[in-house]
Amino acid sequence: MNTSTAFRTDRYELTMLEAAITHGTADTPCMFEAFGRRLPGARRYGVVAGIGRLLERIRDFRFADAELTWLAENDVVNASAIDWLANYRFSGDVWGYADGEAYFPESPLLVVESSFGEGVLLETLILSILNYDSAVATAATRMVTAAAGRPLAEMGSRRANEDAAIAASRAAYIAGFSATSNLEAGRTWGIPTMGTAAHSFTLLHENEEEAFRAQVATAGPGTTLLVDTYDIAAGVETAIRVAGTELGAIRLDSGDLPTLVVDVRNQLDLLGAHNTKITVTSDLDEYAIATLRTAPVDSYGVGTSLVTGSGSPAAGLVYKLVARQDGNGDWVSVAKASAGKRSVGGRKYATRVRDENGLARQEKVYVGLGPEEANSIPASERPLLERLITAGEIDERHLGASGTSRAREHHAMVRAELPADAYRLGRGDPALPTTFA
Amino acid sequence: MNTSTAFRTDRYELTMLEAAITHGTADTPCMFEAFGRRLPGARRYGVVAGIGRLLERIRDFRFADAELTWLAENDVVNASAIDWLANYRFSGDVWGYADGEAYFPESPLLVVESSFGEGVLLETLILSILNYDSAVATAATRMVTAAAGRPLAEMGSRRANEDAAIAASRAAYIAGFSATSNLEAGRTWGIPTMGTAAHSFTLLHENEEEAFRAQVATAGPGTTLLVDTYDIAAGVETAIRVAGTELGAIRLDSGDLPTLVVDVRNQLDLLGAHNTKITVTSDLDEYAIATLRTAPVDSYGVGTSLVTGSGSPAAGLVYKLVARQDGNGDWVSVAKASAGKRSVGGRKYATRVRDENGLARQEKVYVGLGPEEANSIPASERPLLERLITAGEIDERHLGASGTSRAREHHAMVRAELPADAYRLGRGDPALPTTFA
Repeated sequence: MNTSTAFRTDRYELTMLEAAITHGTADTPCMFEAFGRRLPGARRYGVVAGIGRLLERIRDFRFADAELTWLAENDVVNASAIDWLANYRFSGDVWGYADGEAYFPESPLLVVESSFGEGVLLETLILSILNYDSAVATAATRMVTAAAGRPLAEMGSRRANEDAAIAASRAAYIAGFSATSNLEAGRTWGIPTMGTAAHSFTLLHENEEEAFRAQVATAGPGTTLLVDTYDIAAGVETAIRVAGTELGAIRLDSGDLPTLVVDVRNQLDLLGAHNTKITVTSDLDEYAIATLRTAPVDSYGVGTSLVTGSGSPAAGLVYKLVARQDGNGDWVSVAKASAGKRSVGGRKYATRVRDENGLARQEKVYVGLGPEEANSIPASERPLLERLITAGEIDERHLGASGTSRAREHHAMVRAELPADAYRLGRGDPALPTTFA
Repeated sequence: MNTSTAFRTDRYELTMLEAAITHGTADTPCMFEAFGRRLPGARRYGVVAGIGRLLERIRDFRFADAELTWLAENDVVNASAIDWLANYRFSGDVWGYADGEAYFPESPLLVVESSFGEGVLLETLILSILNYDSAVATAATRMVTAAAGRPLAEMGSRRANEDAAIAASRAAYIAGFSATSNLEAGRTWGIPTMGTAAHSFTLLHENEEEAFRAQVATAGPGTTLLVDTYDIAAGVETAIRVAGTELGAIRLDSGDLPTLVVDVRNQLDLLGAHNTKITVTSDLDEYAIATLRTAPVDSYGVGTSLVTGSGSPAAGLVYKLVARQDGNGDWVSVAKASAGKRSVGGRKYATRVRDENGLARQEKVYVGLGPEEANSIPASERPLLERLITAGEIDERHLGASGTSRAREHHAMVRAELPADAYRLGRGDPALPTTFA
């Protein structure tokens, strides 16, 4: 597989392009928009993630000889379309919500302004990335709420596709997780990595004591020992005997955590290991984390539920044509009228309306307004659309490890601005109403 | 990102390796096993997928200079571990269930026989791939059952991570889907690709008729016209007027399908378009497909629910050390005793016991038996473990498009062998009991 991302695309994007080229409409100036009709899982707010990844993937969205040959040999599109694709490089404008921004139903998350051909080709890639990454970030921000200030580590790689796992780490980090188990996420996105040992390491040795001695000899007493391979009370006793009372932490990966954690804390304190922390990692989701709020847990490791969006593994975002220029160069709003899937046509701009205390009160969507005309917006409204691509030039601030770090800071600000209702874990209405202006 | 897959790994695999090297146990001969304690979503059987992908990813699991430098600079492991990793290439044996095989609780899906160091490093990669791909295949086989012989197309790329989407196409195809929308899945795995047009193509034009004319002019009357952008009855009438009564198909992507499809079939027949097929694509899962069993639908397109495992987005497989050699070279079975997460230690071999009619009756797991000694197994038992890697050499029959095609045929055979209970869509017990011998 080469580095081109152009084939991470549904075939129909190319057949539509072909028909539009034949019909002379491929160059029609258009506006596409990505948005969600509702929030995943009846949550109170969604979190955008994937923007930085998307921009890098759009940069690599080129049809090289390998792709063009395959399209020709497989009769996917005709020769004029293949010529068009050979020269393809996205040259339009893209505005969007930043990574880490909160969103609500009908928020115009991404606005793509380009020819029909250039914009339609990106549909699948845009949705793949934003749907998965935002699903993970939207689950992650709730776990951060439930953890109430205690650190969370992402360790779900084994429960997600091996490439998706790297994206999941990034989304979780943006939403407030502190670390990841995934090395590629550490290298690519600059996320702190963590991890010490699994049950297999204990089972490799004659007994738990030998395993702990081997680990402490290499990693030092500051390490985290996994104490639940056999009997937990015996495991804790052995851990402190081997590592001393300055053992960094013990990890629990099974059992009835709310009671177990109290027992283990008492045991550690009785052994004099007052500074030894307790980390728990057993099939946690936001509800299990919330249940542990009053328990003496120091940190959490979250896997399956995080990388699968805690019940909502795709954010349900769609990408629609919302406006096109007619023969006179005038913009025409367009929208389908399908049952249960209606859309609002037209160019959009969005702001978050805040009250005198700086608390968010409304998601305001201006229809027919572009970012260029947005200087008329009152100071109490925070503009939500950032410039991501200008005439094909990608804004590099969103990319790589620095873009990811910036997004994490942005999310912390955005979270702090939300009203108390946003932090409720139960299903319900969005925390802010979306109003059209 | 280079082509090495070595960083698609949890950090703790490397820290365990480091401690084992220091302690002199990294070369201990070991057996690891991947299995599920239960089936995802209380289904009747699971379907293995990802084996062919896994073997290709293991081939690329090498630590190049870029990886070694990063590990050193980030103090992940010490210099001896880095030396060890520089020379790493998996040199052990792997046996496993083939792609497309059915599985049950405790089925030994993958048996890895290698040194501790070589086997522990692969844990994350093995689980990432098998957990996602098998989740999709396990959902897909149920949709195939529900479709009762009508063809199914996979079109979920937009609702899955952009790389996971390619894996999902492969898993669905193995389980019996006929085609995919994803071009990369077509190229990489040889899956037939399909797709014609989205609502945006209709909205690009002044009206539906112009859009249909443009599409038919390029793709011919054998194409599929999407008729629900505005009014469906008017859309169908326009479609036949533009394309003629030999229009290939119309597609419905919204509405109350069981009644709608009957109306549209009647309308098409009244218009004389008896050969025009109806394909439906509106948020289908196995239950919605089953509801349409008596409706005049010709084919289905399935997206979100397929690529997210229809409620079970990860198969819940785990990877455990089950045996190791002691100082005398004798094999010792090992297993943890954690609450709710007990394992059966020891080397495993598995067969599917069939009755005189060739119907599967039992999943039989031999404990302490290796594939080499399996010639003593009765002819009524079908051996389930295939040789995948022998002393580091990958069996190429599982790879690429030909391996995928072979897996699809294998699954058709495996399905036909299952008892009627296996095809029930409701939650319940596994269709076969797992017995240990």
